[in-house]
Amino acid sequence: MRRVEIDLREGYTVYIEQGLLDNCGEYIEKICTGKRAVIVSDSNVAPLYAQRVADSLKTSGFETGLFTIPAGEESKNPENLVKCADFCAESGLTRSDVIVALGGGVITDMAGLCGALYQRGIAVCQIPTSLLAMVDSSVGGKTAVNLSKGKNMFGAFYQPSLVLCDSTVLSTLPSCEFANGMAEVIKYAVLRGGKVREIIDSDNLNETLDELIEECVKIKKDYVCEDEFDTGARQFLNLGHTIGHAIERRSNFSIPHGSAVSAGMCIVARACAEMSLCSSCTAQYIETVCAKYNLPTSVQMKEEELFSDSLSDKKRMGDKVTMVLIREIGDCYLEKTDVENIKNYINKGM
Amino acid sequence: MRRVEIDLREGYTVYIEQGLLDNCGEYIEKICTGKRAVIVSDSNVAPLYAQRVADSLKTSGFETGLFTIPAGEESKNPENLVKCADFCAESGLTRSDVIVALGGGVITDMAGLCGALYQRGIAVCQIPTSLLAMVDSSVGGKTAVNLSKGKNMFGAFYQPSLVLCDSTVLSTLPSCEFANGMAEVIKYAVLRGGKVREIIDSDNLNETLDELIEECVKIKKDYVCEDEFDTGARQFLNLGHTIGHAIERRSNFSIPHGSAVSAGMCIVARACAEMSLCSSCTAQYIETVCAKYNLPTSVQMKEEELFSDSLSDKKRMGDKVTMVLIREIGDCYLEKTDVENIKNYINKGM
Repeated sequence: MRRVEIDLREGYTVYIEQGLLDNCGEYIEKICTGKRAVIVSDSNVAPLYAQRVADSLKTSGFETGLFTIPAGEESKNPENLVKCADFCAESGLTRSDVIVALGGGVITDMAGLCGALYQRGIAVCQIPTSLLAMVDSSVGGKTAVNLSKGKNMFGAFYQPSLVLCDSTVLSTLPSCEFANGMAEVIKYAVLRGGKVREIIDSDNLNETLDELIEECVKIKKDYVCEDEFDTGARQFLNLGHTIGHAIERRSNFSIPHGSAVSAGMCIVARACAEMSLCSSCTAQYIETVCAKYNLPTSVQMKEEELFSDSLSDKKRMGDKVTMVLIREIGDCYLEKTDVENIKNYINKGM
Repeated sequence: MRRVEIDLREGYTVYIEQGLLDNCGEYIEKICTGKRAVIVSDSNVAPLYAQRVADSLKTSGFETGLFTIPAGEESKNPENLVKCADFCAESGLTRSDVIVALGGGVITDMAGLCGALYQRGIAVCQIPTSLLAMVDSSVGGKTAVNLSKGKNMFGAFYQPSLVLCDSTVLSTLPSCEFANGMAEVIKYAVLRGGKVREIIDSDNLNETLDELIEECVKIKKDYVCEDEFDTGARQFLNLGHTIGHAIERRSNFSIPHGSAVSAGMCIVARACAEMSLCSSCTAQYIETVCAKYNLPTSVQMKEEELFSDSLSDKKRMGDKVTMVLIREIGDCYLEKTDVENIKNYINKGM
């Protein structure tokens, strides 16, 4: 059994093991004193896995309810968040009960926020069912829904009480969704090199999936524990994201997050090579790995449009933005710069 | 100038002085690096005071926007919360800007929650305009809106960056709203005695209003700093509230919070006297003070109905609830008991 202890104010454990889905009740009963659970899921995941989670919870003595939203990013809105809280209230959930988030990032983000807000905070167990949610959303406590003006603009920092990663569920994940998660995995390799780089360079990803998830969770944990509220070290995790988010917005979110981050990372890498901040080999390596995992290395967009969309970045502080730049694989650094300067990276990297 | 420093993780200051409204910009510019402010207010308060606040902010170099909701508890709902966040987004508020909450508890609670959630948290300046909001909502960081199933069921713990109490605005407060605030003031006197008791026993409340507010804020601060997340000492602040909340619910919220707390406090006091936990003089004193400030000491409700409504208390942990009981003025204690036992207090105290 792989496990990563997250040592924030209120610590919790990420368990990584195949088959966890059918034993989740045993873990969940340890994080709450109540015996009511609301499972939050979506129309893709619920038919596949909700019953197994409910069965395990019932075996552990829980009464369970299931709240489902349509699959997809459009569902991650304040209306569904409030419906979810209303469902919890109608189910009689008290502060000693638990919300179980079963799904990808849309579900872990929305159900996590619901857990933060329902009665000002109840226990949340995250059961991520996408690679992206396992390696990214499961650690860090960032929860949110989207406003019409922007993604994740309505949210909170709220730590789950428990995270269960069962990689067997990834077998039903569409290949584009798997690639989506690999973009973040590659980001960890660029930031830190090491074991993650070894695994993605090898050709036996399937056999080493649990180890890969564990290593990624550990890296994210390092950044998050150093910087729970996202004002310092955690900004490294934005590698490829400043331009990536602009790509998502410009495509009206038709380009998925992972593809946008992949292209964003490649643009930054090429710009860094162009400015002699890193070698051209380093930029080429990043492009090669992204391509290997079916991720785009560039986008067909106008440079000015991309720049204009990057101005509405949530991370922007007044007229400044912090870019993550690349020296070599495993060695990145932060540079606080005028927002105007983003134009420079886009021009050099596209 | 009276000021109380609140020493939580992120400390902030409560300033209490007449005329603060017209100088608020000078204080607010110290808590944020940005120069955009959204003032959140209601249809009663905005026409009276919003322009003065906006003028002071403009003098300090801020661009201001005003978001107003209809006055009244019904407005404290998730729909208005989301509209408020959308308004902030449309106003281009970034993480370095500020939300200014100008109003009573409905506004400070809702705008505080909006500040907690907008971009996962931006600076909030509270300018409470009711006595209740000054002595209660301004300290403690409890923010919330109501769900259809219950009051304050959707919220967060989020500390403001600054609180400005200008007691001159209380001159326009309806007398029933002033009484509402006095119920919480009397609660502080019962919990702690001392200066607050002296002032409410005297007949020159008007001349000592700023001192009274300062003393109440200090008492609340003591409980809150000991227990930011409301799991221990802060439960003392629920004196009269377990039954008070049931009274509010049973009346379908036609009985205001202060009146309900006053009656709830008197019911608990009489029950304590009946059980010889306190003297009958103590119970009588509480009734006399409540009556002096135009607050009810009892309610016409069926005991069973009141009990049944007390079962949906948010503070309930499974089958247990913590009651605040009275030994004498200035000496109360917590008792964790079966929810069934609430019936006993209701029967003995009504």
